[in-house]
Amino acid sequence: MPAAAIRIRQTPPVLRVVSERAPDAQRGETTLILSLKHGGTHEVRLRWETRGAAHLPVVAVLGGISANRHVAASHAYPERGWFEAQADARWLAAHRVVSFDWVGSDGALDAPIDTVDQAAALAAVLDVLGIDTLDAIIGCSYGAMVGLAFATAHPARVQHLIAIAGAHRPHPFASAWRALQRNVVALGQLQCDEAQGLSLARQLALLSYRTPEEFGVRFDATPILESGSARCASEAWLAERGAAWAQKTSATAFVRLSESIDLHDLLPSHVRVPTTLVAFAEDRLVPPDDIRALAAGIAAPVRLQVLHSPYGHDGFLKEPEAIAQVLARALDCCEEACA
Amino acid sequence: MPAAAIRIRQTPPVLRVVSERAPDAQRGETTLILSLKHGGTHEVRLRWETRGAAHLPVVAVLGGISANRHVAASHAYPERGWFEAQADARWLAAHRVVSFDWVGSDGALDAPIDTVDQAAALAAVLDVLGIDTLDAIIGCSYGAMVGLAFATAHPARVQHLIAIAGAHRPHPFASAWRALQRNVVALGQLQCDEAQGLSLARQLALLSYRTPEEFGVRFDATPILESGSARCASEAWLAERGAAWAQKTSATAFVRLSESIDLHDLLPSHVRVPTTLVAFAEDRLVPPDDIRALAAGIAAPVRLQVLHSPYGHDGFLKEPEAIAQVLARALDCCEEACA
Repeated sequence: MPAAAIRIRQTPPVLRVVSERAPDAQRGETTLILSLKHGGTHEVRLRWETRGAAHLPVVAVLGGISANRHVAASHAYPERGWFEAQADARWLAAHRVVSFDWVGSDGALDAPIDTVDQAAALAAVLDVLGIDTLDAIIGCSYGAMVGLAFATAHPARVQHLIAIAGAHRPHPFASAWRALQRNVVALGQLQCDEAQGLSLARQLALLSYRTPEEFGVRFDATPILESGSARCASEAWLAERGAAWAQKTSATAFVRLSESIDLHDLLPSHVRVPTTLVAFAEDRLVPPDDIRALAAGIAAPVRLQVLHSPYGHDGFLKEPEAIAQVLARALDCCEEACA
Repeated sequence: MPAAAIRIRQTPPVLRVVSERAPDAQRGETTLILSLKHGGTHEVRLRWETRGAAHLPVVAVLGGISANRHVAASHAYPERGWFEAQADARWLAAHRVVSFDWVGSDGALDAPIDTVDQAAALAAVLDVLGIDTLDAIIGCSYGAMVGLAFATAHPARVQHLIAIAGAHRPHPFASAWRALQRNVVALGQLQCDEAQGLSLARQLALLSYRTPEEFGVRFDATPILESGSARCASEAWLAERGAAWAQKTSATAFVRLSESIDLHDLLPSHVRVPTTLVAFAEDRLVPPDDIRALAAGIAAPVRLQVLHSPYGHDGFLKEPEAIAQVLARALDCCEEACA
């Protein structure tokens, strides 16, 4: 990494960069000093990844709090990425993709993290990579919130924001739901069963990501009695998903990233970047009305698309074709606008 | 209690009755042998209460799983009842009201309880009281399910069923929600904090009883940071409600009554009693569509009223005037039909 590529512009000071470069991808770790909005100054290690040749237009892809830097497979890193299904091969071939593991996702930082801090971290990653301006940010769920925070703090560094299933603030009902998840994690820790606390918190989260419509079709069976207790049709699936997730997740990481969603609080009018917003009509976590309010307030051209999905909030993961279409259209528009 | 008043009609055998009678009310305990649908034969102590003179037409009033036999204040038992606000003075004065504490609500019965078992218990209470036929059952939430079970098992013993916010079966999404609540209680029981497990389960239940609309207005504030953690606007209210409820609730009672809702499974076509159904459009626990399906299937005259309430499922408690109107109209109709 040539030193000349590092440009600091009101972004956090970088201490160290370690990276490995392959023909079609690059991974690295950047250690930097981050002044958290709520939580003091911390030394943080950022893990980032890029995919695609350096001369291509750059798009940052940011997912939910459980997502990571590996967006899509490359020759260098061939495992499937979390955005693989949505990442249409055409635009993937035409762009360099940047992403990073969320600040706090390794569980090493036990302090209140804000989406503004994640935006500062993205700016630091771009500095390290010598990327001045992003063609676009594609942010889903938490990633949409971070995209909005980045567009607010660095309007000159992104030409187009595509924010899917995220708004400028959390809905109070969703906040209550998440607060209970964090309290269930705390109960698990108190009871010396952190894994079960995490698993139940994840299962609660799943209920907020999905919809009654999906459950009505998928788990339409009377409960069975097992050892004298009723087991509902969805319980085995929920427990399996919860346990698998608990195994790979640090309690601190979950609590701090969950909390980060509740601390997220931006003014729509401070977003001055052309924006494409996507809402799912059935989303119970981020109600479409909140995204409509965001759309009405943004101080730049906005397009709002309301999609339908029986998967509600999880539509950003479970409706890859619809998302791929949105992206193809939005990124084309962006390129036309930039031409 | 004169022995002649005891009439057994395919209802459980009564072992003992102890009761105290006042001019305008009566309370008693009946010990009986109950053959549970799923859980074998058990000796169960039923606690019941009546209010109003013996010659008046009799209405059974049944509430949610947290309700009890004390429906409304009398001279004998002057404390406020759980249905006080909904119980219009006119119809209260014109009826004798019967209710009972749910089988399992004392925590003494640790076995799967079905709504069919509660219906058998109600029949036993009526036998003990010498009541052949009820003018009406007013059932709310769990009470609506028990009312449907009673109408199915004893169509000749009730002339009119008023079932508010209850259906013939639970919705699979609501079942998943309740199953998680029971699992949170189990987590609390692991070591030594049953109260916190119960409190969190209740808080989760509250989220299912209420609506995002209510929370959006009521808890519209950014979180505050307390000892380095975010506290959302609703957390204090939820924690207070959860703790107060946990203090007065047995874990076994909660788990078995919660489970009882999920075991509830009736055929609408087996209900052959004139029925008034009430749904709340915003009810996320008992979706109006499920009550519409019930209405379509009942083999008797049915009236369905869909009310609106920002309190969702809890509308049966939080919209006393609307409920009082429904009752006045429904009970008038019933009396006309019987005249």
